This record gives sequence, C-alpha cells and structure tokens, in this order.
Amino acid sequence: MPGMDTLYQVSALNTAYAATIDGDRLEDWPGFFHADCLYKITTAENVRRGRLAGIIYADSRGMLEDRVAAIRRANIFETHAYRHVIGMASILNEDADGIRAEAPFLVVRTMRDGQMTLFAAGRYQDLLRPDETGALRFAERVVICDSPRFDTLVAIPL
Amino acid sequence: MPGMDTLYQVSALNTAYAATIDGDRLEDWPGFFHADCLYKITTAENVRRGRLAGIIYADSRGMLEDRVAAIRRANIFETHAYRHVIGMASILNEDADGIRAEAPFLVVRTMRDGQMTLFAAGRYQDLLRPDETGALRFAERVVICDSPRFDTLVAIPL
Amino acid sequence: MPGMDTLYQVSALNTAYAATIDGDRLEDWPGFFHADCLYKITTAENVRRGRLAGIIYADSRGMLEDRVAAIRRANIFETHAYRHVIGMASILNEDADGIRAEAPFLVVRTMRDGQMTLFAAGRYQDLLRPDETGALRFAERVVICDSPRFDTLVAIPL
Repeated sequence: MPGMDTLYQVSALNTAYAATIDGDRLEDWPGFFHADCLYKITTAENVRRGRLAGIIYADSRGMLEDRVAAIRRANIFETHAYRHVIGMASILNEDADGIRAEAPFLVVRTMRDGQMTLFAAGRYQDLLRPDETGALRFAERVVICDSPRFDTLVAIPL
Repeated sequence: MPGMDTLYQVSALNTAYAATIDGDRLEDWPGFFHADCLYKITTAENVRRGRLAGIIYADSRGMLEDRVAAIRRANIFETHAYRHVIGMASILNEDADGIRAEAPFLVVRTMRDGQMTLFAAGRYQDLLRPDETGALRFAERVVICDSPRFDTLVAIPL
Repeated sequence: MPGMDTLYQVSALNTAYAATIDGDRLEDWPGFFHADCLYKITTAENVRRGRLAGIIYADSRGMLEDRVAAIRRANIFETHAYRHVIGMASILNEDADGIRAEAPFLVVRTMRDGQMTLFAAGRYQDLLRPDETGALRFAERVVICDSPRFDTLVAIPL
C-alpha cells in the first residue's frame, strides 16, 4: 500500500482543486496542471467501448487557459453555483512515471432561485507528477462521468 | 503545507460534528464550540456582497444550547433525517490565533416516505483552537450556503 | 484518539470498496469480507426500534458471492450506474476484538438517459479485523439507510 503521505498530498490537491472551481477562481484552475498535460471529460460508456475521444479535450495548460477565457466571455456563471464533493483518492500506482490515482466525485448545482440538482457524478483518473518546486500537479486528469449525456455546454471545469 | 496531523484532527472533528447532528444527538452539538464562539449560517451571495448579517447567528455556546432547546420544542425531527457529507478540509493557515480551515459539504434530507432531496450545499469557513484539554473546538464556524434562499425554518444545525 | 494510521487504513478500505462496486467489479466485492462475517442492510428506523432483522442479510462470504451471482443473472446493471461517496470514517474503538468504525455515505444513481437521482444515504457501522495477510477486512458491515423505504430490489451492494 502506498504511504499516507502520498494519499495526503493527492487528497489535499483534489480538495484545493474543487475549492478553486467552486469558489469561481477559474483563472487559478490551469495552474493545477503541468504545461504539457491531458485534460479530458468523457463518459463511462465511452471508456467501456474503448472510444478515446472526449467531450472536452485539452493537451496543454494553454488550452485550459483558453477555456477559462471562453467561460468568462460566455458569462454563464452569474446564475449557478457548483459544489464538488470529492471522495478520498485511491493510489493505484507510484513509480518513476508519477502517481496514478483515482477519486469519485459528485457535483451539485444550485440555481439562483435556490433549486439544487445533481449536476455530475463520476470518477477522476489521474496521473500526478511534482513540478519543479516539488508540488504535485496533474500530468493527466481524465474526468469519467457516469452519465452518457451532457448539457452541450458543460460550462465549468469538472 | 501544514502537517498531516492538523488535517487529520480537523477532518476527524468535522466527521464527528456531522455524525452528532445526523445521529440526532443535538444536545452534544454545542460542545464542539468554545464558550465564546461565532456560529453563523449565511449565503455565498451575502459573502460576495459584503453583508455581514447571517440567517442564523450565535456568539456563544449558550445561544447554541438555546437553539437546540428550540428545535426540540418544535419537534420537527420526527419526519426527516439528514445526512451530511463533508469533504476533506483545506488548512488555510495555522498560527497563534488558531487554525483557519475550510471544507465543502452536502446535506441530503430523507423524508419519512423515503423521498430524498438535496437540502444544502456549501462550505464551512472555520477557526479552530484547542480547548483546555487540548481537543480542537470551533472558535468560529461560518456556514456559507450556495443557495440564496432558505426554508425560513432551517431547522437543524448545518 | 486512535492513530492516523488506523483511520488511513479504514478510509482506504472504504474507498476501494466503493470503487469496486461502482466500477461494476462485483465479483471482487465479497473479498472485502472475512469468510465468517455479517453483512446487513437495514434502516435507521429499524435500528431505533430495536428490530434486528435487516432488509438484506448475509452471514458468510459465500452468501455474498451468491448475491453477486443473483445480480448478474438479473442483469439489471445495464441501465444504471451508481456512485458512492463515503465520508471520512470515525474510529469508535480499537481493541483485541477489532476496530469499530462508522462512516456516512451517499449513493447517486445515473440512468442511461442521464437522469440522476439520490439513491441512498446513511451510515456504515463496521467491525474490521486483519486477515491472515494483515489486510483489514470487514467482520461486520451494517448499512443503516436513512430512508425507511426501499426499492424491493436493492440491486447493488451498498
């Protein structure tokens, strides 16, 4: 079993990641990734069928920054709040390539009128490596949603 | 990054806090706070607009005890069950004044007929200090709900 | 307070347990239990009234294996996905008999058409002991659901 220290670091990263998105500090979100990275939102069904294409796909931190800029232009945030709850991570492997980890998540959306809905559920499949300062960052974060269908505007990062 | 030990203690406190409320052991709830304390339920919108007033406000453990007594008199508990799921805490700061921490939460309400609804989502913003026995207690717990609207009877503690 | 190490092991076990069920690797689920074990799904109301009978009851790993075989025959999995989010465990006691722990859970169900519902909320009440390899396994897992009513086919393990 990998050490507590790794689990602690990965879980703390997940917690900070969620707080950044839910706190609408989207400009800080790309900083959780390496400059060369994979960020993908896909569905469990796609994964089961071996389809590699994602609903949302980015392979650099720059693309994530572009995405944030697009969200800000669309200005859709005014009417919703999101709340991620991320379960404790499982550390699947730890070697020279980095740390392979997984964690389940739920996201609840609250509308301005107070209506709350389940927005997304699924799991993160991650590869983490330290950056030059030693802090863990995502080399890969694949967001695998349980639902086969999506609002075509999956507005916020998951 | 603050140590694992602090995170462990804060998370264990949050877990015990939730189990106390959800287990309907409300009389034990004020014991999670210092005698002089701040407990406030407010909304993200209020926080954004700099409104200090809360929907529910208490500045002593005695006021929390009064609140529990009022809930018991109203006897509204018979028909609902609540379940908090609190995400891992983020330790924001730790100094002579105490530990500043944050944690996301969801609360699900289950009615007697089995109907389940999302009751609340949001985050805790906390200041924790050890009591005379060394156990961590809340000097401040500000409950910031994502929803701008509330059942005027936010019956249970959040 | 019990040590971090125990909490770490129990939480890691809960996380792996949930990932196994939600990942539809049901054949691995009985392996989380000792050969002699208690697995029971019941309701908070039953517990309050001292009713010992559960909605689902098994007292050996073999019975859990039978249950998985029955679920596979019924083949109900095709249309749903489940996602457990388990809160951090509370370690209630640790002695020669094992570790007594508790943890809150939520389960969200996602249908093929994308509809998401709260499927279950409640708490686990567990007794854990190491197996011959030293790995923690459930000697008892009592699943106490907040809802007094159940789909008569509580299909998946909780």
